[in-house]
Amino acid sequence: MSIAGFGSLVDGTYFGGAMNILDEQPVAGNGLLDRRIFLRGGLAGGAALLTASAAGVERDDWSRAPGAPMDEAGEPSPHEAHVKRTGVRSATGTTGSGVSFSPLEHLDGIITPSRLHFERHHSGIPAVDPGQHRLIIHGLVERPLSFSLEALARYPTVSRINFLECSGNSGSQLAAEPLQRPISHMHGLIAASEWGGVPLAALLEEAGIKPGASWIIADGADSPLMSRSVPLGKAMDDAIVALYQNGERLRPSNGYPMRLFLPGWEGNMSVKWLRAIKVVDQPAMSREETSKYSDLQKDGSSKLFSFPMGVKSLITSPSSQMQLGPQGIYQLSGIAWSGGGRIVRVDISADGGKSWAEAALDEHVLPKCLTRFRSAWRWDGSPAVIMSRAIDEQGNVQPTRSSILADRSPGSGYHYNGIQAWQIDTDGKVSNVYA
Amino acid sequence: MSIAGFGSLVDGTYFGGAMNILDEQPVAGNGLLDRRIFLRGGLAGGAALLTASAAGVERDDWSRAPGAPMDEAGEPSPHEAHVKRTGVRSATGTTGSGVSFSPLEHLDGIITPSRLHFERHHSGIPAVDPGQHRLIIHGLVERPLSFSLEALARYPTVSRINFLECSGNSGSQLAAEPLQRPISHMHGLIAASEWGGVPLAALLEEAGIKPGASWIIADGADSPLMSRSVPLGKAMDDAIVALYQNGERLRPSNGYPMRLFLPGWEGNMSVKWLRAIKVVDQPAMSREETSKYSDLQKDGSSKLFSFPMGVKSLITSPSSQMQLGPQGIYQLSGIAWSGGGRIVRVDISADGGKSWAEAALDEHVLPKCLTRFRSAWRWDGSPAVIMSRAIDEQGNVQPTRSSILADRSPGSGYHYNGIQAWQIDTDGKVSNVYA
Repeated sequence: MSIAGFGSLVDGTYFGGAMNILDEQPVAGNGLLDRRIFLRGGLAGGAALLTASAAGVERDDWSRAPGAPMDEAGEPSPHEAHVKRTGVRSATGTTGSGVSFSPLEHLDGIITPSRLHFERHHSGIPAVDPGQHRLIIHGLVERPLSFSLEALARYPTVSRINFLECSGNSGSQLAAEPLQRPISHMHGLIAASEWGGVPLAALLEEAGIKPGASWIIADGADSPLMSRSVPLGKAMDDAIVALYQNGERLRPSNGYPMRLFLPGWEGNMSVKWLRAIKVVDQPAMSREETSKYSDLQKDGSSKLFSFPMGVKSLITSPSSQMQLGPQGIYQLSGIAWSGGGRIVRVDISADGGKSWAEAALDEHVLPKCLTRFRSAWRWDGSPAVIMSRAIDEQGNVQPTRSSILADRSPGSGYHYNGIQAWQIDTDGKVSNVYA
Repeated sequence: MSIAGFGSLVDGTYFGGAMNILDEQPVAGNGLLDRRIFLRGGLAGGAALLTASAAGVERDDWSRAPGAPMDEAGEPSPHEAHVKRTGVRSATGTTGSGVSFSPLEHLDGIITPSRLHFERHHSGIPAVDPGQHRLIIHGLVERPLSFSLEALARYPTVSRINFLECSGNSGSQLAAEPLQRPISHMHGLIAASEWGGVPLAALLEEAGIKPGASWIIADGADSPLMSRSVPLGKAMDDAIVALYQNGERLRPSNGYPMRLFLPGWEGNMSVKWLRAIKVVDQPAMSREETSKYSDLQKDGSSKLFSFPMGVKSLITSPSSQMQLGPQGIYQLSGIAWSGGGRIVRVDISADGGKSWAEAALDEHVLPKCLTRFRSAWRWDGSPAVIMSRAIDEQGNVQPTRSSILADRSPGSGYHYNGIQAWQIDTDGKVSNVYA
């Protein structure tokens, strides 16, 4: 797989590294350069010196005639047709019990386009009629209520940008041997969107919570009526009944016309196609919160209710199965996030963790959201192992794979947030490695 | 036109306003309620009381069989097919010299989905081949340079969320009589996206700016080679060569594979399909910066180079040509923005400007970005005029239409940021009004 920017340079004279970059001293082992290079610009890269004849800036063919007309929808370029969800697969005998991944290797910034947001469905995408669909609130309430979409539009709405991660994301990193796949096939169950909707607290207050209530059980309208128990405290805190994703109505693969959304918590709990909320005095102990989405410990016990997703980061470019071009300056770019709040720092190593340097963070560092980080790296053509380590505002530090393994029983792959290492060989090939 | 949430309620017993909302006292004339209602939730709305028989939460048809499979792209629901760019039109005899509008009446939050981002093209969308396209930097530089996409990938990248507004947006509000159209047809040349790319400063430093340089001239690769002059100070400040929009590569209708992006400045200057930057010692005084995108004053002189977009807001829901349902509680929701930085406050009036109350702002208030505001309003069924007024961190206050008219020569419709009023009639019909 060849990624734009990591192939060989096609222009004539290449003088990356020939100018002010030579004055930059590494700040950590194996060529990591100061993050301020990114904050201030001024890093020498791969431009080609323009010959005198080219300086006339001649027209290309596409500049010689009027272009395509305006349209009611602006689709991606045909040159980007390869950018789509990856690894679409379902359990044998089903068409809708499986996953598709967000193509992290092709994305930049923090917003995930809605059409590329990963999927994890338990029985496919129901064709919900928004005019007929209702959200029911019942159980330990004074007044059981039914909300149409029109009714919900009368309530306060809020929107904010948050990540959503499946708690099964990255679990393949617990396999005995490192999987050799593009990054999205291993880590692509993570995305960030602007989510807009009605605070669940407003609806629960409308129904009137009875004394003794401590949990809610949220049901989806898919055929298994996929359900999860949620502590009442979270429901009354920042939970919303989401109606909008990235400015427009939810797409069917993300719960149209409404889903529960629990910022920072494992994705499975943000129940799609939300149809009912029952207020109760104890969790349901259903399949999805006992045999699934729980963590089997070394002593044979099962750790339940691990709701907030751990602090985590990934270098997305370069990443597994990419191919570097000639030695020189590269941008290391990735994403970091935490269910615990804001990311405060991301460290980068280019020598397999022996030394670390601080990455530059993009301007918006939002709580419970992806944060994009970048570092400049001078690759000298020798083998290297690159890795990133995130720290959140609660002081949580992304753990190593081995420290996670030490606590887990084999085959327990949920809630994996270990440090990811990529190996770069002398020929520029990037692979997955345990380091 | 009927908008979800503003039609009549279809469920049985309606008791909006019957509960705790009756305790809320208006904070400004004609039913405006305290913004803290939105911050804390708890506003009574349009739920239906659930009858005992319905409390069983029976399955709908779509919950009785497995749903649709995962897919490589997640498209919108067929029930949302009406949500598309509006008012697509071109100058007579052309197919690509015109506009399409972002459908503000259907959007919420601050992100505009890329497929719905408005368009303003001067000769259509060129079919640029990203492998062949080059960005040339020439003129008053030490080293004229040519950048392929692969070369640009070696440079620092940044991303941030900013609005983009055509300076011709809303100009129709200077017409003698208020236009009766959906809001997007009048104000839909505004959008916000996450824009990612290489700081232009890094590329200019690479080329080496010669003494005496004070402007750049940016050319697009469309057939008119649409060009604009940009002060060197802005080019060295926060200008980027944008490669990504909302996480993925730019779409052709927004400049694929690269555009200039100037946060907060009039949209026309963020030249799409960017092909050349010439460093110069004076502006070009081209068509697009003299006869167009300039403001004819009362004394016959023309005000040039009005680059930062003024502080502005719009109530998008309800808005022109929508239809309210029965009297009761409504959410007033809208967007505010300023080229001068962050929005610090949005005031709302429901009595035509006689009294004002502060709106609630959604969580993310980002500089040079859309900010979503909301207010609760108890409509008593009598005629009302609603309006919003934004204030930015520089202390700029959104002006009235009449104060703008006082300075302008008729027919000069660029840079219009006047307060927009909507009239609500006794039958709930919303119309455009000058107030």
